[in-house]
This record gives sequence, structure tokens and C-alpha cells, in this order.
Amino acid sequence: MQTTKQHKLHGGRLAYAEHHSAATGTTMRLSVFTPPGEGPFPYLVWLSGLTCTEDNFTTKAGAYGHAAEHGLAIVAPDTSPRGEDVADDPAYDLGQGAGFYVDATQTPWAPHFMMETYVTRDLIEAVERAFPLQARRGVFGHSMGGHGALTLAMRHPDKFKSVSAFAPIASPTRCPWGEKAFAAYLGDDPETWKAHDSALLIEAGNAAPFDDMLIDQGLADPFLEPQLKPALLERAASRAGQRLTLRSHDGYDHSYFFMASFMRDHIAFHAARLQR
Amino acid sequence: MQTTKQHKLHGGRLAYAEHHSAATGTTMRLSVFTPPGEGPFPYLVWLSGLTCTEDNFTTKAGAYGHAAEHGLAIVAPDTSPRGEDVADDPAYDLGQGAGFYVDATQTPWAPHFMMETYVTRDLIEAVERAFPLQARRGVFGHSMGGHGALTLAMRHPDKFKSVSAFAPIASPTRCPWGEKAFAAYLGDDPETWKAHDSALLIEAGNAAPFDDMLIDQGLADPFLEPQLKPALLERAASRAGQRLTLRSHDGYDHSYFFMASFMRDHIAFHAARLQR
Repeated sequence: MQTTKQHKLHGGRLAYAEHHSAATGTTMRLSVFTPPGEGPFPYLVWLSGLTCTEDNFTTKAGAYGHAAEHGLAIVAPDTSPRGEDVADDPAYDLGQGAGFYVDATQTPWAPHFMMETYVTRDLIEAVERAFPLQARRGVFGHSMGGHGALTLAMRHPDKFKSVSAFAPIASPTRCPWGEKAFAAYLGDDPETWKAHDSALLIEAGNAAPFDDMLIDQGLADPFLEPQLKPALLERAASRAGQRLTLRSHDGYDHSYFFMASFMRDHIAFHAARLQR
Repeated sequence: MQTTKQHKLHGGRLAYAEHHSAATGTTMRLSVFTPPGEGPFPYLVWLSGLTCTEDNFTTKAGAYGHAAEHGLAIVAPDTSPRGEDVADDPAYDLGQGAGFYVDATQTPWAPHFMMETYVTRDLIEAVERAFPLQARRGVFGHSMGGHGALTLAMRHPDKFKSVSAFAPIASPTRCPWGEKAFAAYLGDDPETWKAHDSALLIEAGNAAPFDDMLIDQGLADPFLEPQLKPALLERAASRAGQRLTLRSHDGYDHSYFFMASFMRDHIAFHAARLQR
């Protein structure tokens, strides 16, 4: 793990860093905020949305002041492997910047697009070796990263104690973004997609390890109906008898301005679960 | 005033907008945050530093949550006139993105680089017509914009009731950034520069309308010694018997991460003065 730059903020420290991932076979970039004090700190993994790098959340989310107050660290990785030798697609919603937090099984994505194993194994191991972090983790994210947070939490409940999301892609098997990405990364058989669909995972009982899941959604989000469909999460939770707190916010859109407005609540939600 | 995009955030509203300025003869861009409620709201004018647009503060400063709590609006203009017909320089510290908040008297800058008149007349008039704002204003800024905030407040005390700055260029007549810009915009005679130097203005008693001025400075700021020199502000205030609160912060640099860490204090400082 190589720190490329550092900033002091809110009494803590933000490091931009990079490290080699065996899963992706590439150098992966990330940022790590550690709050004031010596640690080791419980921490949150933030998963960003389409087109984002490790920098969007870091500069725009306004999360670190709240994290400092709660004594939480936050790790924000890039959204895909990158590089000239890594497959890509000219579209914004496939390839570099659009890893969808799955392990690709199909060429040309399979050798490098292993984001599920990257996040749940290589990232976690590397940051816990290099920074003063405890193995008490929450996961949260936005849009594609909201899908990532929900599905990785439910597929790896031994790794994460808490989960929340902003405007997540609730059911990628039932929206254009998800159908396109899953067909490319996982192949043409939709049966193989179902294990990466948070609404279907909740319905199948995979959310049981979590006492609650906090979801915020803006009602002026242009992606609400065609792509995100949070009502599918609510319905799945209701069918499974699972507690899920879906808050719909009049007038809010899909931007970091929306997320910054409710970031304090998400940090507090995770802190309550990671520190008890 | 034409709103180009809008976001809801922290219960309030952020508008990106543009309008024609008679002073600069160009279309000027800005952002305007208004807090929850109907107003009219007292407001702060934020002046950004070198290379910035109206977008840096808006996305990175983490100010709006605090402004919402205090019922303050914030107006953040661009740092210079821009356009193909506007003079420019390849250097980052002169020309477009580097207006220095003065009215240029020298060619090729004089026709458009009228940032003092723009901010203190055209901007204020336009935003108070177009948004629910009161004529109760504070001004604050960063680096070049900290110089702008201090000098415009002292040169126009009828316009601003409160002033603060992050890492301001304290005495542009005595640092390379200021010497270069003032020679270009104001001409070769350093006598003409003195009326735009905040340390000299304080020393001459121009800070008297302000009960205090809050200045935050990071001690790991690479520009501290060669360019910013806040000790000159402190010495000037001491000589003039003027209250000025200069806070030096160990380990903090020149970035928005530094500013975000102390933004809450600046908003509270202005709110206390604008709302009494």
C-alpha cells in the first residue's frame, strides 16, 4: 500500500493510496479517512456509482466531519480496475468506472473485473494491514455502489456488520443498467444474475443478519423509475419479514448534494451498529 | 439572471446561474444556496482562490449544512470574467481564473477584469433581485479570495457587515502572486497597489467597522511563507489596535479539506454578526 498524498482534516487524516490487487491483477486506487486518535477504528467501506473514481465521495460527500465525531474511518475504493491493458467500453455504464461489484466470468472482462473479490478480500486485507483499522466494518454506497453495498453485505455477512445505501440500483436483474452490465460480466443466462440482485437476496432471506438497512432515495431523481426501483426492495423486505428503512425525499435528485444532505444519518446509523 | 441547474440540499436549494455584468461586459457564472424557508435571508459572498470557478466551493467546502442550520444563504461567483474575447495568460496565476478582485486599469485586462465592481455592485444587485436575499451581507474567501474578502470588506464597509478568510494572501504588495497580478492589472507603480493590500488597509484603520475578523491558516500550507504571510495581518492589527482572530492549525494544508474542517466556525462567526 503506497500513500500518494495526504491531507489533515477534521482532526483526522485522509490518505490517497494505491495497492496491487491479486483479484483484479491491477493497481487499485482508494482513499482512507482515519478520525482523530490512534485507533484501531471501526470503519465503513464506501462504494461509488457509475463513472466515479476514489475521488468523488472523498471531495463531495461531506462525510468526514460526521465520521470524525463518531470515531469511524472510511475507505473509498475506485469503481473498477483501470489501465491500458484492462478491457473497456466507450459507454459510461460498462467497463472502466462501471465494475458493478461482481466477479466477471465472461471475456473480455473476466481477467480483471473481479470487484467482488477485490472489495471483500484484497481491499479489506490491505487497508487493515496498512492503516489503524479494526475488523469491524460497515458498507454503504450510491447507485451502482448502493447495489454493491447491499449485495456484498448480504453475500458476505461475515465481513460486514451494517449496511446502508443512497439511491441504490435495487434490482439489477430488472433494469437496463443491470441487465446490460450483468449480461456482459456474467453472461447471457439470467439465472446467474439473481445472486447479485439485492431485492431478490432480501426476498430469499439473505438480509437476516442485519437488524435494519437504511435506504435514502430522492423523489426528483431522474433514474428513480427507469433504473433504481426502490419499491422492489420494500416489497422484498415486506415479503421476507425483514426490517428495512426506506426514506423517500421530496425534491432531491441523484447528486452528491442529495447524499451530503443525509450523510450524517448514515454515519450515525453505522456508528450505532459498529460500536455496540 | 438565468438559472442553469438546481439541486435540493439540506432542506434548501442550490442554483447554478449566470447573468450579464455591465462591469465585466461578460456573462458571469455563480452558485446561490438558499436555506430552508421563504426568506429573505442574510447571506455570505464566497470568493474563491486561483484557478477556481463557481463550482469548487459549491461541491467541496461542506458549507451548506451549516448555512442551513443558521438560516444563511451563500453566493459563490466565478473568479474572473471568461470567454474567447477576454484576455488571458497561460500562467495559472494571471488572467482567467485569477481576477484578484480588483478593477484592472491596464491593457489588455482593463476592459473586462473589473472584479471589484462586479462583486460589490453587479453581483450583489443581481442576486438580491433574483433570489430571496436581504441586504445583510458577509464576505469570506480562500487564498486569492481571502485577499478579496478582506480588501473588499474594508474598501466597501457599507456593503459587508462581517468578514473572514481561509489562508488569505495577506499582503499582495509583498508576495510574488500579488506583485505579478497587481503589476499586470494595476500597472508598474506600487503606490497604486497599496489600496488593495489587506495588511496595509488594516494598518491604516480601514478594519474599524468590523468588531473582529476571523482568519484560519494551516501550518502545513506550502504557500504560507512564500505567498500568504498571515503574520503581516496580525502585526497590522496589533499596530492599529484592531481585533483580529488568527488561528494557526498544525498539520493543515491549503486544500478544501482544510477549509471544510473549519467551515462550521466561519458560518457561525458570520451568522452571529448578520443576525443581530
